[in-house]
Amino acid sequence: MRRAMALARAAAEAGEVPVGAVVVDTASGAVIAAAHNRVEAERDPTAHAEILAIRAAGDRLGSPRLAGCDLYVTLEPCPMCAQAIAFARLRRLYFAAYDPKGGGVEHGPRIFTQPTCHHRPEIYGGIGEGEAAAMLRAFFARRRD
Amino acid sequence: MRRAMALARAAAEAGEVPVGAVVVDTASGAVIAAAHNRVEAERDPTAHAEILAIRAAGDRLGSPRLAGCDLYVTLEPCPMCAQAIAFARLRRLYFAAYDPKGGGVEHGPRIFTQPTCHHRPEIYGGIGEGEAAAMLRAFFARRRD
Repeated sequence: MRRAMALARAAAEAGEVPVGAVVVDTASGAVIAAAHNRVEAERDPTAHAEILAIRAAGDRLGSPRLAGCDLYVTLEPCPMCAQAIAFARLRRLYFAAYDPKGGGVEHGPRIFTQPTCHHRPEIYGGIGEGEAAAMLRAFFARRRD
Repeated sequence: MRRAMALARAAAEAGEVPVGAVVVDTASGAVIAAAHNRVEAERDPTAHAEILAIRAAGDRLGSPRLAGCDLYVTLEPCPMCAQAIAFARLRRLYFAAYDPKGGGVEHGPRIFTQPTCHHRPEIYGGIGEGEAAAMLRAFFARRRD
């Protein structure tokens, strides 16, 4: 999660919403892929940290299915990213800040509880929540100035 | 939608789930981007036709927001793609076959009705449904052989 936090800080410095994500091999703990939000840089509404990390991990492992991997992310995934996590069959999801306005795991559609969702990872929310939430608050406060 | 159907057929021939998507400029009717499912080819669980078409359209128009565009797709978008459509602020969504098992527009989480969804396109479902549904049925029947 420390690595994901550092990526979130880098995103903020680049003018992107500060979210970082890391895909880790469950057995070895090795980092398979890491990314931060790049929606503005890529001009791509789907370029959330989780999507970019999952795409890079699939590319590196040679499979769209990442059943032996876990995901660490600094913000509760949105519904798009939660469904991507289900498609990728990630084993565990660790996230930091909860997101009542845009989250799709513990809020809104609660993607993993839906009958149309065919894989549910183990979920651990709120890990390092204070730091991630402070970073997001500072970012949006600066943007409003 | 005819173009999207042709892309879906090309996907099936390439061993991918037959879904095609086209982003069209609302005012001129010009095709901005078109794609078919490439999950297996790209080893990317997020490489659904809609995601690829939205990414290509953002790249072509130089913006992650596609407010002046419509999307045509041969299958009801899944929750991941529905949320991506919301983020892209697409004006209208036209889709062919309904997807009770995996759809996220009229089934499952019904993404556009959620309080965490901040843009809802106009939605027109069932256009060319018979052709798209037959293509999907034939594809999955062959895969089971």
